[in-house]
Amino acid sequence: MAHGGADFMACKQEEENKAAWLHGIKTLKIQPYHLPPLGPLDVKVKIKALGICGSDVHYFKTMRCASFVVKKPMVIGHESAGIIEEVGSEVKSLAVGDRVALEPGISCRRCNLCKEGRYNLCPEMKFFGSPPTNGSLANKVVHPANLCFKLPDNVSLSEGAMCEPLSVGVHACRRAQIGPETNVLIMGAGPIGLVTLLVARAFGAPRVVIVDVDDRRLSVARNLGADEIIHVSTNIQDVGEEVIKIQNAMGSGIDVSFDCVGYNKTMSTALNATSSGGKVCLIGLALTEMTVPLTPAAAREVDVIGIFRYRNTWPLCIELLRTGKIDVKPLITHRFRFSQEEVEQAFETSAQGGDAIKVMFNM
Amino acid sequence: MAHGGADFMACKQEEENKAAWLHGIKTLKIQPYHLPPLGPLDVKVKIKALGICGSDVHYFKTMRCASFVVKKPMVIGHESAGIIEEVGSEVKSLAVGDRVALEPGISCRRCNLCKEGRYNLCPEMKFFGSPPTNGSLANKVVHPANLCFKLPDNVSLSEGAMCEPLSVGVHACRRAQIGPETNVLIMGAGPIGLVTLLVARAFGAPRVVIVDVDDRRLSVARNLGADEIIHVSTNIQDVGEEVIKIQNAMGSGIDVSFDCVGYNKTMSTALNATSSGGKVCLIGLALTEMTVPLTPAAAREVDVIGIFRYRNTWPLCIELLRTGKIDVKPLITHRFRFSQEEVEQAFETSAQGGDAIKVMFNM
Amino acid sequence: MAHGGADFMACKQEEENKAAWLHGIKTLKIQPYHLPPLGPLDVKVKIKALGICGSDVHYFKTMRCASFVVKKPMVIGHESAGIIEEVGSEVKSLAVGDRVALEPGISCRRCNLCKEGRYNLCPEMKFFGSPPTNGSLANKVVHPANLCFKLPDNVSLSEGAMCEPLSVGVHACRRAQIGPETNVLIMGAGPIGLVTLLVARAFGAPRVVIVDVDDRRLSVARNLGADEIIHVSTNIQDVGEEVIKIQNAMGSGIDVSFDCVGYNKTMSTALNATSSGGKVCLIGLALTEMTVPLTPAAAREVDVIGIFRYRNTWPLCIELLRTGKIDVKPLITHRFRFSQEEVEQAFETSAQGGDAIKVMFNM
Amino acid sequence: MAHGGADFMACKQEEENKAAWLHGIKTLKIQPYHLPPLGPLDVKVKIKALGICGSDVHYFKTMRCASFVVKKPMVIGHESAGIIEEVGSEVKSLAVGDRVALEPGISCRRCNLCKEGRYNLCPEMKFFGSPPTNGSLANKVVHPANLCFKLPDNVSLSEGAMCEPLSVGVHACRRAQIGPETNVLIMGAGPIGLVTLLVARAFGAPRVVIVDVDDRRLSVARNLGADEIIHVSTNIQDVGEEVIKIQNAMGSGIDVSFDCVGYNKTMSTALNATSSGGKVCLIGLALTEMTVPLTPAAAREVDVIGIFRYRNTWPLCIELLRTGKIDVKPLITHRFRFSQEEVEQAFETSAQGGDAIKVMFNM
Repeated sequence: MAHGGADFMACKQEEENKAAWLHGIKTLKIQPYHLPPLGPLDVKVKIKALGICGSDVHYFKTMRCASFVVKKPMVIGHESAGIIEEVGSEVKSLAVGDRVALEPGISCRRCNLCKEGRYNLCPEMKFFGSPPTNGSLANKVVHPANLCFKLPDNVSLSEGAMCEPLSVGVHACRRAQIGPETNVLIMGAGPIGLVTLLVARAFGAPRVVIVDVDDRRLSVARNLGADEIIHVSTNIQDVGEEVIKIQNAMGSGIDVSFDCVGYNKTMSTALNATSSGGKVCLIGLALTEMTVPLTPAAAREVDVIGIFRYRNTWPLCIELLRTGKIDVKPLITHRFRFSQEEVEQAFETSAQGGDAIKVMFNM
Repeated sequence: MAHGGADFMACKQEEENKAAWLHGIKTLKIQPYHLPPLGPLDVKVKIKALGICGSDVHYFKTMRCASFVVKKPMVIGHESAGIIEEVGSEVKSLAVGDRVALEPGISCRRCNLCKEGRYNLCPEMKFFGSPPTNGSLANKVVHPANLCFKLPDNVSLSEGAMCEPLSVGVHACRRAQIGPETNVLIMGAGPIGLVTLLVARAFGAPRVVIVDVDDRRLSVARNLGADEIIHVSTNIQDVGEEVIKIQNAMGSGIDVSFDCVGYNKTMSTALNATSSGGKVCLIGLALTEMTVPLTPAAAREVDVIGIFRYRNTWPLCIELLRTGKIDVKPLITHRFRFSQEEVEQAFETSAQGGDAIKVMFNM
Repeated sequence: MAHGGADFMACKQEEENKAAWLHGIKTLKIQPYHLPPLGPLDVKVKIKALGICGSDVHYFKTMRCASFVVKKPMVIGHESAGIIEEVGSEVKSLAVGDRVALEPGISCRRCNLCKEGRYNLCPEMKFFGSPPTNGSLANKVVHPANLCFKLPDNVSLSEGAMCEPLSVGVHACRRAQIGPETNVLIMGAGPIGLVTLLVARAFGAPRVVIVDVDDRRLSVARNLGADEIIHVSTNIQDVGEEVIKIQNAMGSGIDVSFDCVGYNKTMSTALNATSSGGKVCLIGLALTEMTVPLTPAAAREVDVIGIFRYRNTWPLCIELLRTGKIDVKPLITHRFRFSQEEVEQAFETSAQGGDAIKVMFNM
Repeated sequence: MAHGGADFMACKQEEENKAAWLHGIKTLKIQPYHLPPLGPLDVKVKIKALGICGSDVHYFKTMRCASFVVKKPMVIGHESAGIIEEVGSEVKSLAVGDRVALEPGISCRRCNLCKEGRYNLCPEMKFFGSPPTNGSLANKVVHPANLCFKLPDNVSLSEGAMCEPLSVGVHACRRAQIGPETNVLIMGAGPIGLVTLLVARAFGAPRVVIVDVDDRRLSVARNLGADEIIHVSTNIQDVGEEVIKIQNAMGSGIDVSFDCVGYNKTMSTALNATSSGGKVCLIGLALTEMTVPLTPAAAREVDVIGIFRYRNTWPLCIELLRTGKIDVKPLITHRFRFSQEEVEQAFETSAQGGDAIKVMFNM
């Protein structure tokens, strides 16, 4: 590679690069995005597909998510895939033209948590579209090569972008040790509930029961392979009765429950429904404080497992997509172009829910 | 052994055997207790020491504990040690005269949880003094030989009875994987907090900070080896400030917290104080429903581990006592005789708390 | 149940009950087998299907296997399924007429290993057809109810008998933690290699490479789902070259290897082929002393995991058969009747190998 | 920090820096060592203490160790501690003048093994004094700040250098899960056996039996806290008898054995002596191919755990030294100056063994 020429190209490209900047509530502007220089272990990627996540919608609607606050304009987005346009001088694993999915978080690689392999908990994590770090809804981004994972020919770039939500399911199923002996209950049939369903199936869960208040979502869940779907109310007083209904639907013990919502009712249901010695994974984080029957669960050694993002999940996600063990295409319900006209519309579509599961930009 | 003579003796003894029967709230009567026949794998034990547990006090004061209700008169008590008086025909591990500590729960040994080694969760557990199973505050009991553990010469029968509460600490420290790298926070300096402190130390925890509202208890904790003691309020609004005080007292990350109380405040403190990737063990079960910041903890992958009694703990407890790694004698603050005059007095003493840690019958 | 009548029936049945007694090398006699009395937690089972295991063949050919020696006539056989004919007075989980698969080993349920859930290592194990315990190649046997597992309608009795060899694969795959991220190498395509292949697939192993010296067996393995089959020599000097061939066939790292043979060459290949941080499971126990490159493997933290029988595997095996995730029918290559004419012939067939994988008695 | 001045100083220092270069068998020359530039996350350390390891002696005597070969002159040594002389522009955790112990291996931090926390297996590891990477027997070295660990006031620089061998013991005891319930057998009372003894004690092992052929070493082991020392022969035919002697000395089951030698005899003893379900850690790597009774051990599910160096061990080692749970000072038997006269003499002393345990340079 002629470095002089590459520098010239890089320079030219950076002038043209545009990104979707979040300037205020429901205000996204497509504006120039000057990229940082390409380090020796970095690659430059032309983003071709990007999915909108629930947390992106939170930022779009409120400028905040959990304890993170957008204080100055920030490029949004973090579920992305694209094509390598340039590689750093020491990058050996990737080449220009490679199609890749991007893991969005750059950990410090030097703190105790990183060294122990729990890098998702790194306190210095820089994560696409999590303030103050810019995201990847841009024509191009610069990213470490070791966080860009080559896609096989039979996995599309949109599917590649889906590795990000899928990774949440993979990390949860790994932490919960899902296998061919683990009967699974999933509370919530939104995007995270659905990817958890897909991954639990792929990990061999013999039986998966999924619960929601919305029949449309439940019907999607059934099509994606849920053994039983159960419609529940939003009334917390129904927990006792619904637990019995859920346990009957499972037919045998519930080994692991995933609360993909995080309301008092969903968590209470999960805690009460799970068998002695089982686990409840708390993935959905709707509330800060929860009022739940933690004690009776603890007295049956039902443990509560916290889930934060993921680690080391991309290779497995890609393998599951490649082999067809997981098909994420039915989750992609809406597609938009990356233009000033469509960008806010895409976020509004995602925000409204309805029949939208995953809203995807194709660029 | 001449079985004819043994049968005769057994018969004679059973006529004389007396136990403390719980007849109603605060009503204990020492009355005859006819023992079941000695099975081939059973032993008959003359009880010589029995400690009063918080759950015994619950039954004494309310006729119930958690979901258990005393519906007909029941022999109370389950922390016991004694001397073997007779052994079943197939018992090889024990002999008449052996001093033993008694593990109080008889599991079915045939269900899946038993077969998998989690027998403490056996749904058919028969546990001394947990209705409808009679307890061991009696002159004699019949018990499976494999649940009676021989005491070495340098461990007294009172210390033997202490294996039961100690076992809770051992099971908790095992489940939490305490070792020489685990900084420990203990919420509550009552009997369970104190045994957890002793066991955490014995498991090598480099630093243990203990928290209570009572200075007298904290001072006991300090004498038992706590590195730092912290006096806190009962006001939930102080959690934020107290978490900082606790973290400063620890000086480095808190890897595992034990909530030995089970109030909203203790659990909230534990959840917030524990480092990312750490664990909170919920041992104290004061409340049914808890209102706690479960979500922010889950988002840092702080897991909540439930603790129910113990399994396979007696050999280790006895070894820790034998080697002096743990000294439980300072915990035994009051001693009573097993007589109609003293039995209710002993339970009242335990119920009042005050400077009573462990109230022990010596028989 | 009228016990008098039951006793009479039992008595009558026991007169008729016949079993295959091993009297000497290659000498099996079908002779009366007086059953022990039915305990309250036992069942009496009419055996309908029994498979011949390699260890049975060892006893048949040499009167010994590993450290076990047949010193007096013994009923042979342990891979069995049948129909409940009578249930003990306290048995609730089974009823007369139920079709069941039999787990062959009765552990003491009271030693430390049993209590810790590792009952397969119980030093007092009584195991069908392992001297001095009689086996199950009989018209009827008495067995603990908790070791008899009900078969669903769509699982035949012959398939039920196959739960025993399948259990070895399940236990190995559990200990090795096979899942959708574990690339698997299997040394040996005999019966144990083939069940390990089936189970590894069912546990989600993305890629399984299997190695043997016999093309016929390899072709069976391919039909059962091996991704790659590799023909190797018996010459130990070929290890280096064959490791490269195997690694190329896998295409990525080998996470777990199963040595289902136990020769120096198979183990050397497994140790050298497995990736750093991986595991080698030693299942096949052909040799007592092995000469293998253990040190270079240890220096890459490739651990060697021992496999002895199984524990808690029948429910999973039955579920895998019920759902069709595993089909064991292709493994049953030969069938015999339970008669004096055919019994030695069946063992000879199994001993000769050839195209025999599993030889089954149908009774 | 005035960078101009620092650069000038650095420049001046680099001119003066000297190291011990291994030029050939038993040929060490103290010659100038030009350091690489200080990166933003690096520190420059004045080495003050360095211990000689068995692998250093191998290189000194043969120019090779395991599969590593010294092909061109290389600075030797890797057990070191020193004082920070300069810090990179982004280093916040350390300051000039800090006393630090150096972890010698720099992993890539980007491969799968690094990301999963098993960085000791990183295929791109650059390790002090392991060809072709230069070591730390030098006046000064440049090293990543995150691999330099600050020593508390009560831990000397020589003790700091001992963190390296101690780390092997820590990693082994972690992998073997040593705790207050693990009876430990150690084969070999050389430096690695002795640090393993110290760490096993600190991890709470209730009983440690250590075995060697040399009474002098055994006597050191006894002084360091071994419960029993056992003198054995070098004759492999004595294994059976010695196993009985060892088991009797332990008095109860041997849960974990550490083979710190790696001969057929030591490994055979460890495999046979360890209880069913236990573990044998292979640390000593004397042989390439071993002839050992692997099969009978596997049939009792005694697993063989490989140990390669260590990961994340320095903070714990320093804590164990700070609190006095481990005292390494008795291991330091000989001290030398860093001079052309003494450097080869120090290596010869270490090579001869005798009463030399750890030979230390103080600089």
